[in-house]
Amino acid sequence: MALHDSGPVAVLIEELTRLPSIGRKTAQRVAFYLLKVPEDQANRLADAIRAVRAGVRPCGVCSILTHEDPCALCADPLRQDDLLCVVEESLDVGAIDRTARFSGRYHVLGGALSPLDGIGPDELNLAQLLNRVKEGVIREVIVATNPTVEGEATAAYIARLIKPLGVTVSRIATGIPVGGDLEYADEVTMARSLEGRREL
Amino acid sequence: MALHDSGPVAVLIEELTRLPSIGRKTAQRVAFYLLKVPEDQANRLADAIRAVRAGVRPCGVCSILTHEDPCALCADPLRQDDLLCVVEESLDVGAIDRTARFSGRYHVLGGALSPLDGIGPDELNLAQLLNRVKEGVIREVIVATNPTVEGEATAAYIARLIKPLGVTVSRIATGIPVGGDLEYADEVTMARSLEGRREL
Repeated sequence: MALHDSGPVAVLIEELTRLPSIGRKTAQRVAFYLLKVPEDQANRLADAIRAVRAGVRPCGVCSILTHEDPCALCADPLRQDDLLCVVEESLDVGAIDRTARFSGRYHVLGGALSPLDGIGPDELNLAQLLNRVKEGVIREVIVATNPTVEGEATAAYIARLIKPLGVTVSRIATGIPVGGDLEYADEVTMARSLEGRREL
Repeated sequence: MALHDSGPVAVLIEELTRLPSIGRKTAQRVAFYLLKVPEDQANRLADAIRAVRAGVRPCGVCSILTHEDPCALCADPLRQDDLLCVVEESLDVGAIDRTARFSGRYHVLGGALSPLDGIGPDELNLAQLLNRVKEGVIREVIVATNPTVEGEATAAYIARLIKPLGVTVSRIATGIPVGGDLEYADEVTMARSLEGRREL
């Protein structure tokens, strides 16, 4: 009979294994690490998980997940209002913002079109995007979805949606390896990709 | 101004980064993953962390961290009482037990001797080990500490402590790469290592 097949340790390992980038070995290490550290450090992590769910909501303007509404980027008076960068996830905003080559606004879709997973246009924040563009201030929409099948399909969909309104729609350049994931891009690659954008 | 420099997301990323094997990128992925999953899944993880701290204690016999006292291994009537395997951490017990080549009892030291880190004999469960051996049932103590400087020093210390009592003290064979960590060993290597043990 194995030792930790049931009980609280097994439950914790099970929950940790569900997390992205965390396999069984890492989950075991983390579980036993949490048993060894001072109890208040373990509880701080538990509290941080609850706090993030209790205190974080999508920004009413751009849908970024943050604790402020509107978010710090939407509220920043120094950013350009005529340039909008559309990304799949909140995490992708950080990847772009760290390049310091983009001073416009953001819009988070909350994913990419993926009919096989049941994600159609209604599951993404596309109506809100269209409304923002219709206000008439935005001159250019940069589509910075991932260079994957789903991301490219989403970019093409957005181009069809927005170009009729007379707004330029551009796509970040390849430079990011195809099949990769935006949040892993280094800052130089990300900057090249922004600079090399082409009109759709 | 960056978006998640403060607030609950930053706090969660900070706490996640403290965990072993988890860097900043993984911490960010996990944080935003926890924002996207159903709230009860995130809360189940938070609860599992608290439960593990509330419900898990060292076994009174072998010091394994578990929710039962005595633990399932100490309570198992089918295991050999005359063979004792000494390991640094609770997690190492799983690495050995999965080989199915050891049917004796275990003893968890809670670490290895490391004077530079302030870990001397009194910081490890060595007095309990000595008491178990003095009961007179144990014929052989297999020292399965990690093949690192600290683990080897601990093994030598245990040999000096226990051999005067007329008990065989053996050391698991190299086979596990030197400098490595026991919990990462594959089962075949771990089994070879158990079979090739030599007397100290």
